[in-house]
Amino acid sequence: MKEKVFYGKGMKSIKDEYLDIYDAIVDLNEAVYSGKVLDYKTQKLIAVAIAASNSDRRAVKKQIISAVSEFNVSKDEVMDVLRVVLLTSGMPPFIKAVNVLNEVLNE
Amino acid sequence: MKEKVFYGKGMKSIKDEYLDIYDAIVDLNEAVYSGKVLDYKTQKLIAVAIAASNSDRRAVKKQIISAVSEFNVSKDEVMDVLRVVLLTSGMPPFIKAVNVLNEVLNE
Amino acid sequence: MKEKVFYGKGMKSIKDEYLDIYDAIVDLNEAVYSGKVLDYKTQKLIAVAIAASNSDRRAVKKQIISAVSEFNVSKDEVMDVLRVVLLTSGMPPFIKAVNVLNEVLNE
Amino acid sequence: MKEKVFYGKGMKSIKDEYLDIYDAIVDLNEAVYSGKVLDYKTQKLIAVAIAASNSDRRAVKKQIISAVSEFNVSKDEVMDVLRVVLLTSGMPPFIKAVNVLNEVLNE
Amino acid sequence: MKEKVFYGKGMKSIKDEYLDIYDAIVDLNEAVYSGKVLDYKTQKLIAVAIAASNSDRRAVKKQIISAVSEFNVSKDEVMDVLRVVLLTSGMPPFIKAVNVLNEVLNE
Amino acid sequence: MKEKVFYGKGMKSIKDEYLDIYDAIVDLNEAVYSGKVLDYKTQKLIAVAIAASNSDRRAVKKQIISAVSEFNVSKDEVMDVLRVVLLTSGMPPFIKAVNVLNEVLNE
Repeated sequence: MKEKVFYGKGMKSIKDEYLDIYDAIVDLNEAVYSGKVLDYKTQKLIAVAIAASNSDRRAVKKQIISAVSEFNVSKDEVMDVLRVVLLTSGMPPFIKAVNVLNEVLNE
Repeated sequence: MKEKVFYGKGMKSIKDEYLDIYDAIVDLNEAVYSGKVLDYKTQKLIAVAIAASNSDRRAVKKQIISAVSEFNVSKDEVMDVLRVVLLTSGMPPFIKAVNVLNEVLNE
Repeated sequence: MKEKVFYGKGMKSIKDEYLDIYDAIVDLNEAVYSGKVLDYKTQKLIAVAIAASNSDRRAVKKQIISAVSEFNVSKDEVMDVLRVVLLTSGMPPFIKAVNVLNEVLNE
Repeated sequence: MKEKVFYGKGMKSIKDEYLDIYDAIVDLNEAVYSGKVLDYKTQKLIAVAIAASNSDRRAVKKQIISAVSEFNVSKDEVMDVLRVVLLTSGMPPFIKAVNVLNEVLNE
Repeated sequence: MKEKVFYGKGMKSIKDEYLDIYDAIVDLNEAVYSGKVLDYKTQKLIAVAIAASNSDRRAVKKQIISAVSEFNVSKDEVMDVLRVVLLTSGMPPFIKAVNVLNEVLNE
Repeated sequence: MKEKVFYGKGMKSIKDEYLDIYDAIVDLNEAVYSGKVLDYKTQKLIAVAIAASNSDRRAVKKQIISAVSEFNVSKDEVMDVLRVVLLTSGMPPFIKAVNVLNEVLNE
């Protein structure tokens, strides 16, 4: 299953206790990240963009960590994603994501 | 200036009456869509994703129209973007964007 | 499949062209609306609440129509849901949903 | 009651059918718009800002109409509010509100 | 006053310093949680749903704690609420709320 | 550059590594906070309102600290801003901002 970094601990408890939800998520995840044209890496960057636009610090961190570990995504690439966030979603979500990016790459 | 389709009518009134804002937006737009690594088309798809995630019907439409006219983006490509929206943002923003996509490509 | 009213036209095009996404949504939908304790009607009212809280006029309308046609939900019941929206999400989403509710019940 | 323009039709139905909610809203509205230091006009501009930041076209329109009719607020004043929206919330909510502003002042 | 767990410390300072706001909130709260048809527990679950959909970690925690202490709400019940969040709002708010739920019930 | 408190650490890294983005932000910031009619302090309070409405704890804190240090804004003034947040955005963002306000003024 792709995205396993992203789902983490919560996903394990769902697998143990709510298998029907778990199976539905696994299938959805599979369908989502099996695009016809775009590769998985581009979809991953899109997931970073959405998390950043929503100002969701935790999701941005998980997605950047996952993008770096799976695709060795560079700081410049993530920053190119965040440029679009700056224009479409404003300074606060942008700067929050930049801070997360700096944290992740300096860990 | 890139993205001119997107800004439309409102942008013209800003140019006429608030030149300082207009200039700042043009410069910001230029910096945003001059990524170091990602090409403009990928950034454009990211803008579609963010608009869809925010459930912003009007912005989704503008961005898809612009992506189609500038890059001849296919339905499958946009749908690959919207797959990520489905997983990260849920059914209502996803289905709204799918409806817009169908409208735009049947116009 | 439950919720068929909600998904409407867009869902048909997905079934025709993107069967993998369609199947994943159907399975997710099934898992979601097969709660262990809460009945489907209560889950439906929760869906109304979330749509209203997100100020999503179209989703509120679909959900109320579906709740009325499937469970004959009363105006008072929906209003009890919207009371919580007023407290947690403020006047604009509340009044928007009240307007939709009045429209639906007077159609 | 202040803000009566804003609440409109939906508010009337609430008064007729749900007097307890109506009374609570009237009291809340009174407490909100009876600031200790800021005048009502400044609070009104803040309401415009929040509606614009939330990309809520309908609420922006109601708030601008109300601000113009009650305080004869100028286009420049509203634009000064929307400048902050541009920086904090990005282009799509900003341009949407600019379009509404132009519509209202040309009606 | 219902919901006293939810409001906590901030509410106390408002009572001491801004009695007009405090009184308006108490009245609003009373009107909101005095539904005509739905019982308080169902409204409480709706409040959990809205907090989770908004990805508001702190509000989800307060609402779940309050639902458990007032109604002895079970994990399965909250999970039935969160199922709807998964479908309507996507994975990140869902998994965030699942994590909070696990935390609260293991404290 | 106005707002320097707000941008903090992340802004420094952008200046060092992405000068084109930095310059665009500085220019945008300058255009935004050079309103024709409203003074900078009122615009600052609007920024507090937007941050609070978006339930963005970190941005609320930065904006309140900046408003206090630059304009010696009083608790009553910020509370008058937050009154509007209560009405338009609901209890959770309101109470979160009130807690931040209390923290900042007791530090």
